[in-house]
Amino acid sequence: MTAVSYEARLTELGIELPGPFPPHDPLDAVVVHGGTARTSGSLPRTADGVLADEGILGRDVTTADGAGCADLAARNALSLLRAHLGSLDAIERLLTMTVFVACTPEFVEQPAVADGASRVLQEIFGDAGRHTRSAIGVAALPRGAPVEVEITAALRSGAP
Amino acid sequence: MTAVSYEARLTELGIELPGPFPPHDPLDAVVVHGGTARTSGSLPRTADGVLADEGILGRDVTTADGAGCADLAARNALSLLRAHLGSLDAIERLLTMTVFVACTPEFVEQPAVADGASRVLQEIFGDAGRHTRSAIGVAALPRGAPVEVEITAALRSGAP
Amino acid sequence: MTAVSYEARLTELGIELPGPFPPHDPLDAVVVHGGTARTSGSLPRTADGVLADEGILGRDVTTADGAGCADLAARNALSLLRAHLGSLDAIERLLTMTVFVACTPEFVEQPAVADGASRVLQEIFGDAGRHTRSAIGVAALPRGAPVEVEITAALRSGAP
Repeated sequence: MTAVSYEARLTELGIELPGPFPPHDPLDAVVVHGGTARTSGSLPRTADGVLADEGILGRDVTTADGAGCADLAARNALSLLRAHLGSLDAIERLLTMTVFVACTPEFVEQPAVADGASRVLQEIFGDAGRHTRSAIGVAALPRGAPVEVEITAALRSGAP
Repeated sequence: MTAVSYEARLTELGIELPGPFPPHDPLDAVVVHGGTARTSGSLPRTADGVLADEGILGRDVTTADGAGCADLAARNALSLLRAHLGSLDAIERLLTMTVFVACTPEFVEQPAVADGASRVLQEIFGDAGRHTRSAIGVAALPRGAPVEVEITAALRSGAP
Repeated sequence: MTAVSYEARLTELGIELPGPFPPHDPLDAVVVHGGTARTSGSLPRTADGVLADEGILGRDVTTADGAGCADLAARNALSLLRAHLGSLDAIERLLTMTVFVACTPEFVEQPAVADGASRVLQEIFGDAGRHTRSAIGVAALPRGAPVEVEITAALRSGAP
């Protein structure tokens, strides 16, 4: 059905998708409409559901740790997509990602933090993982998370 | 035409939609494209057009009052949709909502604030009111509003 | 092919589109899907690629200078669209713009800043330049930029 299997690539690369950690009612983890799927904002949760880090960049969290949180939050978002679609192989390509980075007014390395998320998407999806992105430094995020990520993907025709 | 009338449910529940308060030129209150309608960012305005509250969460505004502002801003956004579409019954289902919450760097209850908006959407639309959401804590919002909400909805076929 | 040429209008008005300044890999400057084109977040870069201003509104940057940055960031975003689509004349109409304004918690003139971007879009596209907008005050933006803009446009049928 698909020349490249993203599920197979995940296994090859040994990349884990912790979750899914769906949001509470009446929120949907993922909404599909018009051939695209969009996730709710995902936080960087480890396999046991707790945040990998708390606090804000430029004060409590280093850029490297922030990039790790962005990587993890992106994998949490993929876990939501897989649970909703049945398989990552329902995805044709990624479209856009917004990365919100909780930070001080002096912090200007939002792109380096967001790159943690962009890189893991490229590893898994290759060229189909390219995406438009906005990296935004915000005052604070739910539960003290340093990063929140939302992803929109285009679906293969015939996908649920 | 429609099994469930959201306009009838509004009346039954006694829920008011203050407004519409359209933005200034050259902004559009609502843009329809590809079967979806998206609103401009809506602030929590009462029937006379003034903000229900001013300031930021974690300093000037309580979580409960912030949730009330989110509820009101969501109803302002629905007022824009009704004015543009002629009726809420043109809506098939909600798709996504972003809730921006002006707050201090220490404030972490953005979800509880945003729930004020999500709950009123569920009351009116039932299961069709489910949506993906990102709740983001930001530095400040227009005119000192504590909350700003933007909504995207899918339209019934045949809707304007 | 098109009654009004936006490229011709640009020349008439003497409006320049500095760039394009595409983002680094694996980001796409523009993604086209389902008849719409969306840009990555654009910063206010002058023709030589440097930021026109740095810092945050309410502390380092005046509202007038912020509006100038929003104008410039919107023209940078149009430069990305032109490079991807071959011509601005591939655009049918604008749909939505988000304007992130780096600012202090006391700053409330985000709409006046964002108007710099909205006005130049209206000059170039006329009624087709109308758009929904959210203007959000954030903690900080990449490289210390005062403003970041992302634009979504609907494409004429037959556009690439």
